[in-house]
Amino acid sequence: MTKRELEHAIALGSHAPTDAFELVGTELSVGTQTVTEIVAQAGGTPLYLYSEAGVARRVAAVRALLPTGVRLFYAVKANPMPALLRAMATRVDGFDVASAGEIDFALQAGMPAERISFAGPGKTVDEVAAATRAGVCVTAESAAQLLLVARAAQDAGAPAVAALRVNPNLELRGAGMRMGGGASPFGIDEEAIPAVLAGARNAGMRVAGLHFHFGSQILQGATIAAAMRHCAARALEWIGQGACAPAWVNLGGGFGVPYFPGERALDTEPIAAALADIAAQFHAQAPTVELRVELGRYLVAEAGVYLTRVLERKVSRGKLFIIVDGGLHHLQAATGTFGQVLRRNYPVADARRLAPVHAAVAVSLAAESAVADIVGPLCTPLDCLGRGVALAHLAPGDLVAVFRAGAYGRTASPESFLGHEPCREVLV
Amino acid sequence: MTKRELEHAIALGSHAPTDAFELVGTELSVGTQTVTEIVAQAGGTPLYLYSEAGVARRVAAVRALLPTGVRLFYAVKANPMPALLRAMATRVDGFDVASAGEIDFALQAGMPAERISFAGPGKTVDEVAAATRAGVCVTAESAAQLLLVARAAQDAGAPAVAALRVNPNLELRGAGMRMGGGASPFGIDEEAIPAVLAGARNAGMRVAGLHFHFGSQILQGATIAAAMRHCAARALEWIGQGACAPAWVNLGGGFGVPYFPGERALDTEPIAAALADIAAQFHAQAPTVELRVELGRYLVAEAGVYLTRVLERKVSRGKLFIIVDGGLHHLQAATGTFGQVLRRNYPVADARRLAPVHAAVAVSLAAESAVADIVGPLCTPLDCLGRGVALAHLAPGDLVAVFRAGAYGRTASPESFLGHEPCREVLV
Repeated sequence: MTKRELEHAIALGSHAPTDAFELVGTELSVGTQTVTEIVAQAGGTPLYLYSEAGVARRVAAVRALLPTGVRLFYAVKANPMPALLRAMATRVDGFDVASAGEIDFALQAGMPAERISFAGPGKTVDEVAAATRAGVCVTAESAAQLLLVARAAQDAGAPAVAALRVNPNLELRGAGMRMGGGASPFGIDEEAIPAVLAGARNAGMRVAGLHFHFGSQILQGATIAAAMRHCAARALEWIGQGACAPAWVNLGGGFGVPYFPGERALDTEPIAAALADIAAQFHAQAPTVELRVELGRYLVAEAGVYLTRVLERKVSRGKLFIIVDGGLHHLQAATGTFGQVLRRNYPVADARRLAPVHAAVAVSLAAESAVADIVGPLCTPLDCLGRGVALAHLAPGDLVAVFRAGAYGRTASPESFLGHEPCREVLV
Repeated sequence: MTKRELEHAIALGSHAPTDAFELVGTELSVGTQTVTEIVAQAGGTPLYLYSEAGVARRVAAVRALLPTGVRLFYAVKANPMPALLRAMATRVDGFDVASAGEIDFALQAGMPAERISFAGPGKTVDEVAAATRAGVCVTAESAAQLLLVARAAQDAGAPAVAALRVNPNLELRGAGMRMGGGASPFGIDEEAIPAVLAGARNAGMRVAGLHFHFGSQILQGATIAAAMRHCAARALEWIGQGACAPAWVNLGGGFGVPYFPGERALDTEPIAAALADIAAQFHAQAPTVELRVELGRYLVAEAGVYLTRVLERKVSRGKLFIIVDGGLHHLQAATGTFGQVLRRNYPVADARRLAPVHAAVAVSLAAESAVADIVGPLCTPLDCLGRGVALAHLAPGDLVAVFRAGAYGRTASPESFLGHEPCREVLV
């Protein structure tokens, strides 16, 4: 089986194919370990399975886009599983964290404090103090947060150093979640930055970094490229004017993942071209500045799969439900109930009959009851992992795989809802 | 201040008023304890505060609707906080649970096993075995689940007893979440019940109860009344035909709570009238049957408030954001991102200036920047507790109250998202 055939076997219906996993026969696998074996070793389902090789391939693919010297940061919030973080700490150049809790996760994973940046629009006094004690650079999202940093530094007898998060003045089209451009609680409006930099200078504070964030889950490479060019131009302008002399500039990321039918993988070519230009400009105008790209979801989503076992086939008034032992409490995003307006299916598949199911889709769609709803064990109609999917053959004991589950999965779900057991997680 | 004035003071804007809390001066209180005192005793914010008196008042109000002998059950999934469950165990006649974990919660709260019923469309072999060992009645949601109960009873050397969950054959209008009527993973289709009852009889199983569930979050009393009449008629029909001789019939509940602007409190009069008729019918035709009404949300939502503290006022491009220390990770439903199509505000208020704020609403709405978005500390634009609310005066240190937070709050939220600390909870 060629890599291309394999990708197509793992792609179901009109979802974009994935190359994060392997097949052994028709069974989803990590290397030569089948999901049957992995589930048995993990003690059962539901199970989050992350492929370390899949993560490594994705990191390598991103590295290939980056000009020499541009550093890759991982946003811990996408997936803070300890084993995954440890694996990631050896592969990326730094972590971005979003809370004092994530500072601890990052340090425990072996990331040095000086390679950690701390973002977040609602930092408390205690959190800023904890970051200062740990030696983690706080990214101030407002003048008020800059003052918090100054006070914490004074209390700790440390030099007052911070980064600034910039809310760029652009309106991005195609961003799944817009986080820059308009009015926003995130960061400091680009047009206010010169005044904040002057204020920091007058207060004797050093601005060590500029952290741009322009969006999330963007599937158009040209959009990301344009945003990065805009952010780089602003940074160079401020540096050139002598308004700041940052040690690093984080250009953001926002690389999207094709979760839904009809979506296609991000075209990274325009991004690579933009980064090459930006790196050359910085080399010429600000050679000491470390350029950073920060990604969360894009590095881990593809390499994660949520595995759940079929408990029962149930027909109610002519409609087939496949009831599984996992659901909304572990992977809310796949149920379409986490901030989505229209419910669309994540890629869902029979984990042990990948190729045959794929071949059979066109045929079975024509037959009655060819489709089923895949529903979880919770007492709520929201608990639906797949609506009208071509998996009507599934029987009790079968394993269902929900793909692209590696980011914003377990921690972005109400795990204690209805008192079910915590979800297993394994990195293979 | 009269009770009516008090209710209006706590009602903000066009939200329905609440009587679950008190005021001391202009400050939200439980009895004579102000939220300032309660927050200090609890160690800070964010904090879920539940009023035991508020719960007791709501239970008493529901009891007043129920004819003599009709029992009130609490659905633990609405809020399983241990102290709340203990308080509830002394006030209601039984608990309905949705997992093996909730069986433990119910027993630990002091509810006897024989007063617990166990629902859920995806019960595992282990869960059914645990329920059987504990002496908890399993509500089978399918013929396959009935078989699970029979096997567990055989393994335990216990008599094979189960209840049946019935998916009634009605289409309810006005149910926020429809769980009965059409095709559903929940329960056994009403029209299939006679065959399932015959099968159970042939297998030597006793059907101890019939458990109807027709909907959730219904704000029209007439709709609930009609559904209960339908369910009672079916049960009496089957009993009259000798198809079953249940010890109890659970007529469901589905009483809604007015979360959003313009919604009005449930009119319970039609329900009381229907229950009086139903009780009389059962008294005449099936006098040994215990009638049950089961409520979750309706008993606890009103008596809970989520308290969060203002960290910062922030203006971005002319728009005011009030950044608070709590948010989506604790009360996802209030952010409008939990399965809601249109985002609407929960009632949100300044917890220490309730009456004045209320009086000022009409005035301040006319002024520029009269409204603000109340946003949480998470790095996602989804983390918004109130959009365009008339709370532009809030300053750092102020307490924000999100009302109707007593049900589907903490456990229905992704608490570990972004590594923040667990939420405090207190019952006063």
